[in-house]
Parts: sequence; C-alpha cells; structure tokens
Amino acid sequence: MSEKIANLDHMSANPLIPEVQEAMIQAIRTDYGNPSSQHKLGDNAAEALDKARESVSRLIHAPSPKDVVFTSGGTESVNLAVKGVAWAKQDKGKHIVTSNIEHNAVLRSLRRLKMMDYRVTSVPVDEYGRVNPSDVVKAIIDDTVLVTIMHSNNEIGTIQPIQEIAAITREKGVIFHTDAVDSVGVVPVDVQQLGVDLLSFASNTFYGPTGAGGLFVRRGTKLWPLLDGGVQEHNKRAGAENLIGIIGMGAAAEVTIRDMPARIAHVKKLKSKLLKDLPQYIDEYIINGHPEESLPNLVSVSIKYIEGESVVLMLDDENFAVSTRSACAAGALQASHVLLSIGRDFADAQGTLVITFGVDNREEDVKRFLAALKDAVKTLREISPLYVKKAAQA
Amino acid sequence: MSEKIANLDHMSANPLIPEVQEAMIQAIRTDYGNPSSQHKLGDNAAEALDKARESVSRLIHAPSPKDVVFTSGGTESVNLAVKGVAWAKQDKGKHIVTSNIEHNAVLRSLRRLKMMDYRVTSVPVDEYGRVNPSDVVKAIIDDTVLVTIMHSNNEIGTIQPIQEIAAITREKGVIFHTDAVDSVGVVPVDVQQLGVDLLSFASNTFYGPTGAGGLFVRRGTKLWPLLDGGVQEHNKRAGAENLIGIIGMGAAAEVTIRDMPARIAHVKKLKSKLLKDLPQYIDEYIINGHPEESLPNLVSVSIKYIEGESVVLMLDDENFAVSTRSACAAGALQASHVLLSIGRDFADAQGTLVITFGVDNREEDVKRFLAALKDAVKTLREISPLYVKKAAQA
Repeated sequence: MSEKIANLDHMSANPLIPEVQEAMIQAIRTDYGNPSSQHKLGDNAAEALDKARESVSRLIHAPSPKDVVFTSGGTESVNLAVKGVAWAKQDKGKHIVTSNIEHNAVLRSLRRLKMMDYRVTSVPVDEYGRVNPSDVVKAIIDDTVLVTIMHSNNEIGTIQPIQEIAAITREKGVIFHTDAVDSVGVVPVDVQQLGVDLLSFASNTFYGPTGAGGLFVRRGTKLWPLLDGGVQEHNKRAGAENLIGIIGMGAAAEVTIRDMPARIAHVKKLKSKLLKDLPQYIDEYIINGHPEESLPNLVSVSIKYIEGESVVLMLDDENFAVSTRSACAAGALQASHVLLSIGRDFADAQGTLVITFGVDNREEDVKRFLAALKDAVKTLREISPLYVKKAAQA
Repeated sequence: MSEKIANLDHMSANPLIPEVQEAMIQAIRTDYGNPSSQHKLGDNAAEALDKARESVSRLIHAPSPKDVVFTSGGTESVNLAVKGVAWAKQDKGKHIVTSNIEHNAVLRSLRRLKMMDYRVTSVPVDEYGRVNPSDVVKAIIDDTVLVTIMHSNNEIGTIQPIQEIAAITREKGVIFHTDAVDSVGVVPVDVQQLGVDLLSFASNTFYGPTGAGGLFVRRGTKLWPLLDGGVQEHNKRAGAENLIGIIGMGAAAEVTIRDMPARIAHVKKLKSKLLKDLPQYIDEYIINGHPEESLPNLVSVSIKYIEGESVVLMLDDENFAVSTRSACAAGALQASHVLLSIGRDFADAQGTLVITFGVDNREEDVKRFLAALKDAVKTLREISPLYVKKAAQA
C-alpha cells in the first residue's frame, strides 16, 4: 500500500504551504542584492526584508517592526535571549530562574552558562505542567538577571501563565524571556498583552521554512549578540540575512494572521475527535497536559505497558508519522524530563506518544491512525512481560 | 537609460546561478520533513542534508563530510570558531593571536572576548597586506589558545601564507582558524594541504544563497557550540537546519567544483583588462593588495583627491554597483583599518573603491565602467579643494 504518509507530527516538521512556496520561489528568481549594500542592487532586498519584518511583527503584536530580530530559527532565538541577557547583565548578577520543563534549547543554554559560573533556580510544575507564579516570586533573588519560562510546552502542550509571571518580573525589575517557539502561529500571541521582554519564535511552526526565526526584544532590553560582525539587525545579530528564508517566513506570517481562527478550529476538532474516540481503541492510558490551557494541536498520551519508540516505528511502517518528542539522542533510553516533572513514572514516560495536528490533516487521518494505534498497542503489549503478567493475574 | 545594473560588487552579493535556483525550487516543492525525525517523513531530508554535506566537503577537500558543520553563514562560522575555541580552552589560557586586517566578524568576536577577560595580540601586515609568519611565532605565548588569521582579505584581496602559519601553530600546539569566507569557491582551498584546524566559509561566495555557510572542524578540535539545544551537526550547532538553503549551498558547491578553473580564468581576464586600461582613464591612484598572492576577482584602487563613497553613489546612478567595502556604519567617516594597516593615509583610504567580478560580468562591463569612473572622478576632483589647489600650482 503506497498511500501518502499522514503527518501527525507537525511539530517536528510542518510542510511549506503554497503561499510560502510561491513567495520563496519568486524570491529565488529575483536577483536580490545585499540589503546592506551601498548601491541600489541591494534596495529591493532591503525592502523585502522590511516587508517580512512588518508581517512578522504583526503576528506577535510587536509595538514596532524594529523590535523583531531575525535569526536562523527558534534555537538561535532562545540562545540569543538567554545567553545574550546573561552576558550583558553579568555585572548585575549571575542568577537565572527557569522551570523544570523547558525545551533543550533553554536547558542546554543554561547548562552552558553554568560552565561560566552562572547559577540557575528551576521552579517545579504541577501535574498539568503549569508553573505556579508564586514559585517564581520566591525564586527571584537580588542577583537574578533573567527569568526564562516557556510559553507552551513542546511535549505536553501546556500553556504557562505568562502574563502573571511577567507582572512579577516587571515589578522585580528582572528581564523575562519566554520560549514561544511552539506557540507563535498556533495560538494568538501578543507580546504587549503578555508583557514579556523577550519572546522566541520559529518560522516552521507557522508553515514557513526552517532556518528562519526571530526574537522579540522589547525596546531598551540589553543583550549581547551571539553573532558579532556587521551591523545587521540593529547590531543585535550580525551576518548576511537568510533572505529567501525570511521572505518565506514573512509570507507564512501573513497567511497565519489571516487563517489562525480557522486553523485553530480545525485542529481543535481533530484533537477532540481523537480524545473522544481513543477509549474505543485502547485502554490504560493517561492524557498529559492541562485540559484547557494547552496547545489546540497537540495530544500527549502515555500508554501503559508499551514503549513509545516502538509504536513510532510500527506506525511509521503504516505510514503514520508520530513522535515521542522525548529529546533523548537516538538509542539512549532516557525518560522525558517533562513527563517525569508532571509525575509520570519512568515506564509511563517511556510509553508516551505525541500527536500534533496541522492544516493538512483530515478526520479520516484520526480514524485510520486510531485503528493502526490499536493494532500496534495490541502487538506490543503481547510481548510486554508486565502486561502479560497482569493479564494472567486478571 | 534603463539598462541592467552591472554588478561589480559580487563580494557583497552574488546572484544565485541557475543550477542553485533549480535545486532550491525543487527542494521547496518537495515535502521535506525534519532530518532528525524518528519516522520516514524525515528520511529524505536527512539524505538531502548528507548529499549537500558531501558536496561542500569536496569543495574544501575535507577528510570527511563529518568535518563540516553547517551554519547560517560566514559570520556564524567565524563566531563559532573564534568564541567556541576560546571558551572551550579557557582553562588552558585566554590569549589569542590575530592580524591587523581581519574582517569585522573576527574583529568584533575578539572584542567581545576581551569583555570576557581574554587578551589579543594582533600582528601587523606588510605594504601588500601580508602577515609575516615569524611575527606569528613571536606572538604565541604560553597561554595562547587560538590563532585566527584570514585566508584572503575582503578589501584588498591579499591571500595570506596560511600553510606556513599552520606549520607554526601545529608545532606550537595552538589551534588555528582561518576566515576563508571570501576565498572558498573563488580560489582552490584545500584544508588538508593548508593544515588548518578550522576554516570558515559562506555559500554566497560561490553563488549559493545567503543564510548558509559552514565551518570545517578538524577531527578532535574542541569547541563550545554557539547554539545549544538539539544534537544536530554532531552536537556542534543545535537547531533545525536551513534545509532549503543548505541544499542550495550543496548545488552551488557542485557547480563550483566543476567550473572553478573557467571562473578563475574569466575573472582574471577582466581584472587584467581593468588594471591594464585604467591608466587611460584616470591618473594618481594606487592599486592595493599583493600583486600575485591575491584574489583573482578583486581590484582595490585608492584614487587620490576623491571620496570613495561619492564615487559609489555616482556610479550607482549610472547603473554600476561597486563598493568601498569599508566596514564603517553609514554616515560615519572612518577610514578602513585594512587600508591604514598597509600604509595608505587617511585620504587615500577614503578614496578607495573595490571592484569584485563574477560569472555574469563581460569585458564590455569593464569598458563601460572605466568610462563612467573617469567621468565621476573628473567631476569629484573638480570640487576637491586639494585637487584644485594642486592643479593651480602645476
């Protein structure tokens, strides 16, 4: 059966939507110069860059396009925010507050800073993966220079009370960064309403190309560039711009502004169907994440007596792309720090699947996926010593 | 006159050659997944990435494709090399050796490191812009952890004795990085023959897209990533890859491997013609850079009694794109550190134009350019107080 692969792992890779493809192809066929040139060969490039910056700034409701720094993607944005502020503020202090369920880009940036004598306090989350803002209050000390807490979690979808946390950091005079890489373009994000100082995002989350992203930097927020060199991006990020990618991101932002309500309705319907029908296909599972404050496109399910990796491989054979989203390197059997943080035990964490929907999914995909999942789970449980033992006892 | 702009500033922006355009358009139309995915949606992406890495590694004669780290461009490559080694080696020492004529990406990365208590020794260059390897020997001290000296200079084209310097650093046990951003794809570059540990390059130099570049990292050379997060690029550079851009860079590398001899012959002919005919059009000028050890596509000329910026603007009106390549921010009247380092005085440095040829230039461009240059120089000298005074004395 050579049917098309059903992408139920949009968070790993969204397709480029037709409008983005066309904008990028048009850009490739245009002989753009260098936007920093002294001559008119670069004028069109500078204009295209301005246009994209305007579109992207509207997507996140930045006060001005100048508040958006283009980067090579979400990871660079996060690194720029976290390390850039830490370095720029080193004379004030070397303490940073974060949460227990951050993405690797934040986690490992902080680990790097620890090697440079920074100290990190990590606040816990509740069973739904939510940070309690009062824990952030307690964690901030005199030499805290940065609070970095993600907007939504990439494994369980929980959305944090960012606005409340921002009110705290503002009162304490501490810079607040939120990693919104899995939120911007999926749910409404308004940097002014949120009150954050820095917000990271990535183009591919809203059907733009990989290799392009951005960082919202509130006017007056000091950070050291990661990339030193030319004066691009208002001296916050040197290097010739990824013009084709940025043009694609701008087009993606435009379409997203237009389509977001319809997209949310679409993925919500699929998510509801999946959650509603799931009990008819498998038993003994836990749905992870917050029941309301959560990404509308994501379902995280911990299925007992199986390993998520095995399900992923079996479903891959059936042309369904799903993910465990556990960030471990291939082969290393580690449990997700996010799932352990919300109270899953090691075995349940290992048995977790993450389904993320997108514009190209249909209800039929959910139905076919559930049937395939049922078979996979059945097969895997039949060879699970724990399950076999339990069945024998029953 | 609506004629096409003659691009005589290829170093600022090369066009995308047709093969690169086609490869990128093909990539955009292919529904690539994420090369790091657990499922087969990402397999094609991983293959495309491997193919590009193989092409690029052949262009620089890397021992293995694994020795190439993809980055977002030359600036990131340089920052990764310089800061990455400095940080990774901080326990060994905090001293770095460089030259007086480096590109801003190196200069400002070093300036940043100085803010982190690193010390820098900068060796001079001779009147042609060449470093004397014996100066490098003298500059290396016990706690030197890195020597970073560019392969070719972006303002005067001079190529450094990299092989000799590499022999010194190897003997001294110091890591050697060369910024070859303006060399790779223009002249043959063989990292094994050169003997360097790290070599930076950028895709646009060889007609690939901006936003893609790479760093050669000799096996065993320790550096800290600039971007921490996922395990991409063998843990040396986290973040979802700029797949479309990298595929473009791979295609550009393939064409460059094939066409380099013809390209060199082509730009050499144009450069020779320009240098030979120039005396018939203007007088009182100096050609900068080394007469032999120099980029074949670059001419730097300091024209007395004028300002380069003014010539650039006047020629722009006549549809010629040229550059001063002085790295000063718009409006700031600073003289190039490179030109001052080779002994130009402030006025001559200010009067410098850089012409860089490419595949799309014709002899006719040179002829028309020289005529336009003659007019521009004449006009500007007529309003130059120094020139008027000198003419009156004659």
